[in-house]
Amino acid sequence: MVQFLDTREDGFAAQFQSLLGMKREDSPDVDAIVADIIADVRARGDAALIELTSKFDRFDITADRLAFSLEEIAAEIAKVPPAERAALELAAERIRAYHARQMPEDQRWTDAAGAELGWRWGPVSAAGLYVPGGLASYPSSVLMNAIPAKVAGVERLVVVCPTPDGVVNPLVLLAAQIAGVDTVYRVGGAQAIAALAYGTDAIAPVDKITGPGNAFVAAAKRRVFGRVGIDMIAGPSEILVIADGTGDPDWIALDLLSQAEHDESAQAILITTDAAFGDAVSKAVEARLQTLQRRKIAGASWRDFGAVIVAQDLAEAATLSNRVAPEHLELCVADPDALAEQITHAGAIFLGAYTPEAIGDYIGGPNHVLPTARSARFSSGLSVMDFLKRTTLAKMTPGALKAIGPAAETLAISESLEAHGLSVRARLDALNKGEL
Amino acid sequence: MVQFLDTREDGFAAQFQSLLGMKREDSPDVDAIVADIIADVRARGDAALIELTSKFDRFDITADRLAFSLEEIAAEIAKVPPAERAALELAAERIRAYHARQMPEDQRWTDAAGAELGWRWGPVSAAGLYVPGGLASYPSSVLMNAIPAKVAGVERLVVVCPTPDGVVNPLVLLAAQIAGVDTVYRVGGAQAIAALAYGTDAIAPVDKITGPGNAFVAAAKRRVFGRVGIDMIAGPSEILVIADGTGDPDWIALDLLSQAEHDESAQAILITTDAAFGDAVSKAVEARLQTLQRRKIAGASWRDFGAVIVAQDLAEAATLSNRVAPEHLELCVADPDALAEQITHAGAIFLGAYTPEAIGDYIGGPNHVLPTARSARFSSGLSVMDFLKRTTLAKMTPGALKAIGPAAETLAISESLEAHGLSVRARLDALNKGEL
Repeated sequence: MVQFLDTREDGFAAQFQSLLGMKREDSPDVDAIVADIIADVRARGDAALIELTSKFDRFDITADRLAFSLEEIAAEIAKVPPAERAALELAAERIRAYHARQMPEDQRWTDAAGAELGWRWGPVSAAGLYVPGGLASYPSSVLMNAIPAKVAGVERLVVVCPTPDGVVNPLVLLAAQIAGVDTVYRVGGAQAIAALAYGTDAIAPVDKITGPGNAFVAAAKRRVFGRVGIDMIAGPSEILVIADGTGDPDWIALDLLSQAEHDESAQAILITTDAAFGDAVSKAVEARLQTLQRRKIAGASWRDFGAVIVAQDLAEAATLSNRVAPEHLELCVADPDALAEQITHAGAIFLGAYTPEAIGDYIGGPNHVLPTARSARFSSGLSVMDFLKRTTLAKMTPGALKAIGPAAETLAISESLEAHGLSVRARLDALNKGEL
Repeated sequence: MVQFLDTREDGFAAQFQSLLGMKREDSPDVDAIVADIIADVRARGDAALIELTSKFDRFDITADRLAFSLEEIAAEIAKVPPAERAALELAAERIRAYHARQMPEDQRWTDAAGAELGWRWGPVSAAGLYVPGGLASYPSSVLMNAIPAKVAGVERLVVVCPTPDGVVNPLVLLAAQIAGVDTVYRVGGAQAIAALAYGTDAIAPVDKITGPGNAFVAAAKRRVFGRVGIDMIAGPSEILVIADGTGDPDWIALDLLSQAEHDESAQAILITTDAAFGDAVSKAVEARLQTLQRRKIAGASWRDFGAVIVAQDLAEAATLSNRVAPEHLELCVADPDALAEQITHAGAIFLGAYTPEAIGDYIGGPNHVLPTARSARFSSGLSVMDFLKRTTLAKMTPGALKAIGPAAETLAISESLEAHGLSVRARLDALNKGEL
């Protein structure tokens, strides 16, 4: 049975704290292995990549075939049924439209001192997207990572994806094509991350690496961080639903299970102001768990990490949710917009009974790469910003330098940075002497 | 003598590559020590903090005195000369005005399918700012870190700053007060980072930690990353100047030295289209190095990592600069705005002869916390965005769900995520039956 909590019961504070602090993920320590793999790829390039691919993916390849050819891609894509192609295309269009609105604007202005100030945004030159192979190979993730990069204006966008036993998911190749990916390399693991960060003869290095992966990929991303930019290190998925008891308990049950089915370490929490509704949802979950294809995974997640919490009112529910800072938050209440005003920390909010979280996973438009493990307290989902960087601009006129330069000199001297002060003073002296 | 390169000479490509690849920093491996310190603070809280402060800072403190009292702050601040106070206040005002323009806007719209989409920005609840003690204790850095946090709306903003032998820089306390910092704790090192990330009885935990520090602080920030957000790990400072030979060689020499004087590992590079001007700048640097207070540090940096590069034209200079992706870029040329158009990677650009980089360090307005070690290829300087996070919003109407829900179901089934598909299907079936 799932854990039931009630905010009015003694001991709730401690129970809730323990729910927050639950360690849901075993992180195997693969760092030493990963360090060796990265060093090997740096030293031997493609030869290492090929050997490691043979070893880990049971797939023999040559350097000139690391990238899928256009013919291979066309042949794989031809296998995709029309309905799936149409769904991917609609998803891509909606994701593109949403992310296009995220493009930030450059600014330039002149202030009262006569100083011209501003900033300018520009894309990273090249980005690499990691796509897991096998079971967790999701075409939707290809769209969610690649489209923001293309919208940002990234010039060269490549995908690395392992093909265990040589098998590739045609939908992944189609999603890459729809999103405008330039090249797909059939390599994976830490060796693929090393190739993206340092480059080999066959694979030119990139500036930014995004995308989910297993423990080896995560450790490799941590190791190459600084050499290149990386996105967040994703943890197991989470959903929190706040429900006021209106609506169908089975819908909520399916929403909870749609995160639970991802991973035994996923977490699904219902907070409701209606204890009877909480019971009904719990029963609906158990009923669905009888037949769900992924019932073993979803059942383990629900039993081990799930919870139904009865709150006194929606304000209390919002407060608890803010302490969780969930990746996904569904507000299945009569007035979801009013409740959303009370939410301070969440990766994504799904408003109202007709917005199941799965809409956001595929087709809504917002990104499905979102902060996990309470990191919505301080970080955001993937966006075009992850593929852009800002250059600040400053331009002094002689007048502006005269107005603000002396203060800079004073501060430089107070910090014992003499050359800083002199670089301002030399100009001020020349201006004051009227030399210029 | 400094290294002279010429793009027309044989071997330039290899020389330039080796300049790019120079390892300028020894990173002592302090990770094991830092892991122990963090574990100790997590286990013993304030007691550990007090012991470690006594050991590393030779300063005995009690838990109730970890924070500076208002009286102590007032007494220290009274020592600051009026000119320095006025300079700090002017700097704060200009930094605040610049960063206020960075505040991003929330968006909400309804698309053609009837889906309401958008996002909302919100501040992190609490932020902690690390300020080094002793020699590298810069009040300007307090302003540059604290003001964006306050502009973003961070509710609780604290500073940790070691006070070796009990000594504090009054300007640091004044800068904290001007910037609106709530509390200053006199602790430093990895133990201060651990306290900020995990909390102790005396110090409540924060959600985001920023600010520069030594190798122990950097290693601790890496370790607590994920538990809290962190800013970049700063490397030694860099400046690249592009000069067309107009202007005073001594000004450029001082600008180069103003980075070189920070650190023996700093790097200052001049790219000029005028070989004679390059010579003149080099001579001016040597002349200034005769008398500069920090000539030992600046001289070592210039000799070991400095370079004068003669380029054929400004376009070539821009191309080389983009490969460096410098933290600070000065364009001391007749038409700096035209040249800036060709710059794709730089942390900050200083336009024209009257904009020495030191203006940006103190008083210009833009942030002086900027990406080092070529990371301007993929990252930006500190800004209000570092203290904000985005929550995405999605709200489907029944009509919107009917329009786009089926595609989500198709993709869910293609990814073998049955509950995802059912969560959409259950709602579509109810709508189609007209039950709702």
